[in-house]
Amino acid sequence: MGKVICLGLGPGDPELMSVRADRLLRSARHVAYFRKAGHIGQARQIVSGILPEGAAEYPMEYPVTTEIHFADPEYNRLLAEFYEDWANWLAELAQREDVVVLCEGDPFFYGSFMHLHSRLQGRAELEVVPGITGMSGCWTATGSPITWGDDVLTVAMATLPEEELVRRARETDALVVMKIGRNLPKLRRALAAAGRIDAAWIVERGTMNGQRVQRLSEAEEVAPYFSIVVVHGQGRRP
Amino acid sequence: MGKVICLGLGPGDPELMSVRADRLLRSARHVAYFRKAGHIGQARQIVSGILPEGAAEYPMEYPVTTEIHFADPEYNRLLAEFYEDWANWLAELAQREDVVVLCEGDPFFYGSFMHLHSRLQGRAELEVVPGITGMSGCWTATGSPITWGDDVLTVAMATLPEEELVRRARETDALVVMKIGRNLPKLRRALAAAGRIDAAWIVERGTMNGQRVQRLSEAEEVAPYFSIVVVHGQGRRP
Repeated sequence: MGKVICLGLGPGDPELMSVRADRLLRSARHVAYFRKAGHIGQARQIVSGILPEGAAEYPMEYPVTTEIHFADPEYNRLLAEFYEDWANWLAELAQREDVVVLCEGDPFFYGSFMHLHSRLQGRAELEVVPGITGMSGCWTATGSPITWGDDVLTVAMATLPEEELVRRARETDALVVMKIGRNLPKLRRALAAAGRIDAAWIVERGTMNGQRVQRLSEAEEVAPYFSIVVVHGQGRRP
Repeated sequence: MGKVICLGLGPGDPELMSVRADRLLRSARHVAYFRKAGHIGQARQIVSGILPEGAAEYPMEYPVTTEIHFADPEYNRLLAEFYEDWANWLAELAQREDVVVLCEGDPFFYGSFMHLHSRLQGRAELEVVPGITGMSGCWTATGSPITWGDDVLTVAMATLPEEELVRRARETDALVVMKIGRNLPKLRRALAAAGRIDAAWIVERGTMNGQRVQRLSEAEEVAPYFSIVVVHGQGRRP
């Protein structure tokens, strides 16, 4: 009997992987990972220098990413089928051998693996190894602490409605916004309306090659997918 | 010229340290860490099997922890002096050699090192290595993802006023509460008032020996310092 082991890979720099993830990866025989069709995949790229020769690889290619809006029932149907198929396949393989699933950041924090995890309950032994979140990598890159004392931290997705983003930005001390991409203009307007745009930073490719840290007010109009916006808390400090 | 390197040690399990922190630790010659007087210190304990023989150790003992309320000016004065003294000492040592400062979890996320970091600006070369947060270790221990889809995550300290805790618990999808200790009865009342007590979990010593995961409604009245309360988000999932 094997098991399905999801490894959180951290924010991107391979040295920021946990010792346990690194160890399990170096002896892995079966490795699955999500990616967009036609791309190498960010998770696969992180482990390039670590994966043992001869490990069998299983790229799980999303049937759709942003081509259909996530509110469309067709988006939901395609993804449900995709997760169902891979869960079946992983459950089957784990009857005989361990299989490792790669996951950027921390698997239980907005990760795709969760959709396999829920479908594998009771069908395979499961292990999840936490990882450093992408947001930790990004606020560390800014060179300033994200939260002090009793600061409240809010983590929100830029996919939320503009008025909700305004309210969230107003009512928190520290703020992290993810899933930026095409939502950047909306996020800028929301942060401006909340009076926090001048305190906002955008980090592109945090901890990875090509990392960029800029004030949001000075950044370009478009942001790559791996971008995170942070507003630091200013709480109590002796 | 040396530098001051703060290593995030992760949630407690030494294998959840990053490969970089592990590597830097194994060659460290000067190691400083915070602790409560009379205790070994959690950070020091995590690195027990890793620290090289002959490394010089510098325990930085807090002059006060919970004996004086943090709103008392005396609390502030004592801690400011403490951080000032150690910042001076680290700046001096880093003129000649590298010195490693240990930090549980992720240094820029509610960590004590920030108070040295701000005082060392321009006085020493600084490096911060992010770590897996205690909260990641704790939600992984619950066996369920903390956030899905567009869930909003709020991180709040149990030291906040009760009415603010009620409001924060009501207005978020997923919730993490830290700094529990003697604030547990207040937090329970707040979660009950917000209608979320039945969905709350308390994790004690997450990822460490003696880890306990319980429904908050079934847990005892007192909680050890290393406790975190989580309420999972229930967002969109295909």
